[in-house]
Amino acid sequence: MSLELQNQNHTVDILPHTVRHVALRRGDHRTPEFSQLNPMQKVPVMVDNGFVLTESDAIMKYLVNKYDVPEHWYPRQPERRARVDEYTAWHHTHTRPHAAKVFILEVLLPAQTSSPVDEERLSRAVSQLDDTLEKLESMFLRRQPFLCGDDVTVADLLAVCELMQPEAGGRDVLQQSPQLQRWKSRVRAAVGDAFDQAHAVLYAVRDRRRAKL
Amino acid sequence: MSLELQNQNHTVDILPHTVRHVALRRGDHRTPEFSQLNPMQKVPVMVDNGFVLTESDAIMKYLVNKYDVPEHWYPRQPERRARVDEYTAWHHTHTRPHAAKVFILEVLLPAQTSSPVDEERLSRAVSQLDDTLEKLESMFLRRQPFLCGDDVTVADLLAVCELMQPEAGGRDVLQQSPQLQRWKSRVRAAVGDAFDQAHAVLYAVRDRRRAKL
Repeated sequence: MSLELQNQNHTVDILPHTVRHVALRRGDHRTPEFSQLNPMQKVPVMVDNGFVLTESDAIMKYLVNKYDVPEHWYPRQPERRARVDEYTAWHHTHTRPHAAKVFILEVLLPAQTSSPVDEERLSRAVSQLDDTLEKLESMFLRRQPFLCGDDVTVADLLAVCELMQPEAGGRDVLQQSPQLQRWKSRVRAAVGDAFDQAHAVLYAVRDRRRAKL
Repeated sequence: MSLELQNQNHTVDILPHTVRHVALRRGDHRTPEFSQLNPMQKVPVMVDNGFVLTESDAIMKYLVNKYDVPEHWYPRQPERRARVDEYTAWHHTHTRPHAAKVFILEVLLPAQTSSPVDEERLSRAVSQLDDTLEKLESMFLRRQPFLCGDDVTVADLLAVCELMQPEAGGRDVLQQSPQLQRWKSRVRAAVGDAFDQAHAVLYAVRDRRRAKL
């Protein structure tokens, strides 16, 4: 999500790529140009030498399968890979919808419609997200430092990006979850500078909202 | 879903396995025995030589990665595999919740609570499912016989099983979708006898409900 459409050249670790922001608030995902790329009108979309792919989950797994990426991101050993696929399947019906809903109700809808936050719906969404955070701690992180084992995988990236989203509204959803806070620090350390680079637009939205208060 | 807990020995194609039914209506998924296997208290669960795995999506991909299964089910070529991962990610936020909701409102909740169907909620769920069916036809099946290309994959199995569920309530959700009907016939032909074997309990629930009317 961004307030501007722009091109940037990033080189994070070994995979050179160009980031192109799509401003949801301005409806850039509904333009004819973007709809041709993704008729679903959703972000993100990856284009790799003409191969067009949607869904962040599929994009990350594709990049590990296609390129020379450190294996820990998406292990080849069937049992370890299955743990990542198990979390990502669960993610789509828990972490993803619940974190996204908080972000949509608190940040996106008010920005798009210039109307106040629906506090009742927001409060229900926060409570649903809390259930999911509790499961992330008690099930996935119970006996291991990362969601799928001893090392960071694409599952952690998928989860952390979703849980970062509400920060655009100044909300730290992990405030009451010390185990998840420590996990987030581990993911951040594993990712390095790319963590803050990937969230630069989100931080800018948060800071602009803060300045307005 | 089944009305009885029972063991059956099946040998479908090349992977020998034992099916164990878990009766949701009776709450078999909330027993201490089952909760130990899956603390999330959800079906399905696979146990493969002591390796416990949940989420049908992850289970099917694991079986193809681990065993000597025909490659078309989950192609190794990164672009073709990415198409399957793209559909399955989409599946969890579209086909899965919308088809499941129709089944839950029309079959499961009335059976569990002995109360009548909430027709208003059911009607909203059916309309949401119709949007998803429209996207399955216009996006995924637009130019190809199966969801992810020219051959059947685990994505088709995931989708067809979800779309079969409402049949337990006597509802053919594909009635107005000729393209999806033809796709379902192709998946059925590709799967062979295992298709009806896998749905035997569902057919029995449907027939028992019919007999009561």
